[in-house]
Amino acid sequence: MPDQHIASAFDRDLEAVQAQIMKMGGMVEDAIRLAAKSLETRDEELAQKVRGADRAIDALELQINESAARVIALRAPTAIDLRLILSVIKISGNLERIGDYAKNMAKRTGVLATLPTVNDSAGAIRRMAQAVEGMLKDALDAYIRRDAELAMDVIARDEDVDQIYNALFREFLTFMMEDPRNITACMHLHFIAKNTERMGDHVTSIAEQVVYLVTGEHPDESRPKADQTSIVAEE
Amino acid sequence: MPDQHIASAFDRDLEAVQAQIMKMGGMVEDAIRLAAKSLETRDEELAQKVRGADRAIDALELQINESAARVIALRAPTAIDLRLILSVIKISGNLERIGDYAKNMAKRTGVLATLPTVNDSAGAIRRMAQAVEGMLKDALDAYIRRDAELAMDVIARDEDVDQIYNALFREFLTFMMEDPRNITACMHLHFIAKNTERMGDHVTSIAEQVVYLVTGEHPDESRPKADQTSIVAEE
Repeated sequence: MPDQHIASAFDRDLEAVQAQIMKMGGMVEDAIRLAAKSLETRDEELAQKVRGADRAIDALELQINESAARVIALRAPTAIDLRLILSVIKISGNLERIGDYAKNMAKRTGVLATLPTVNDSAGAIRRMAQAVEGMLKDALDAYIRRDAELAMDVIARDEDVDQIYNALFREFLTFMMEDPRNITACMHLHFIAKNTERMGDHVTSIAEQVVYLVTGEHPDESRPKADQTSIVAEE
Repeated sequence: MPDQHIASAFDRDLEAVQAQIMKMGGMVEDAIRLAAKSLETRDEELAQKVRGADRAIDALELQINESAARVIALRAPTAIDLRLILSVIKISGNLERIGDYAKNMAKRTGVLATLPTVNDSAGAIRRMAQAVEGMLKDALDAYIRRDAELAMDVIARDEDVDQIYNALFREFLTFMMEDPRNITACMHLHFIAKNTERMGDHVTSIAEQVVYLVTGEHPDESRPKADQTSIVAEE
């Protein structure tokens, strides 16, 4: 039964690459959590650790892409198997971007520690990051279990993240207008909030891949759009 | 000579997918240029066109991914051929993100038109966008011609874009502190400037793919890092 032999060899290879994806996912979850924590507690040492860990995340992406290419070259998968192995490349690309955003958050911890705190903004950002981390965990679970329903749930939850961001954007405008000494800190905090919102977009993109893998269809693109701050003119 | 037949069939397929990439690239170049122009001239009708065109760019990415998957399934390429066809997926992903940033820029034209102009910021952003558009054109040329030297040149030019962004960030801080009535406009303009800087990062990522395709090695990652605003604390 050569066909069956080939099929299960592919399955083993796919599982090995998926294990790499889960490892990368775990590293990225840590990066999100620790970056947000270092921001809130003004812990520059922890932030330094997050920045250092990003190199390992980047290296793992390259490794995953090479593994995927090797599986394709070796097993010549078609149809759903090919779709599965190509999704690995997309997902590792999304994870790498999320890791980058976490690193960028950790980069600003040092300068923010020298500036006045702006209300509970760092706490709000940490809660936003927590929501994104939870979404990422579920998106990867949905991927491993081929669970389109859980993936759709992740996609829906991205709207909550968008709402937290939109509220923060308005708050930052208000704080800056109230007191110009808040301006520099608010610019950095807005930057971080926006990056966290973007992490959510990349998690959503992973969840959309899962829906496509399971159902063969791209999820409805007509969902309400993310960032509403483009229409904020006045407070 | 079945082998040779297979080889040239692959080449034809690859050329067809690359033609799609070049088409997508042209659409994204237009999006960058027109988004920046609509911002500078406060032309809401033009901005509307840019926003509308993004759907076609997104659709083309899906088409390209499907074409690439079909070529892999049909021709079972290995080694350099496989690397070539997988690069198509990476590059179309980068183009899609750049298109998204252009759309986001065009989204803010309307609200900015209702706010006071902030010096020549819109002009500075347009020049920055022009630099990115030129980089993208050259990155795609380098891709088609497998020209690693041109690709390295594109990577180097990203530093100029980063510098324009860093200077703008400092300017925005100053304008906001000078006059709180500038705050809302500056927040939107900073958002746009940062997105333009990110477009440059994605073009750089395309150029890095080209270097990898031609030389088999990933370009040196130790190049000076992009955004220096994370250390701006005071003006």
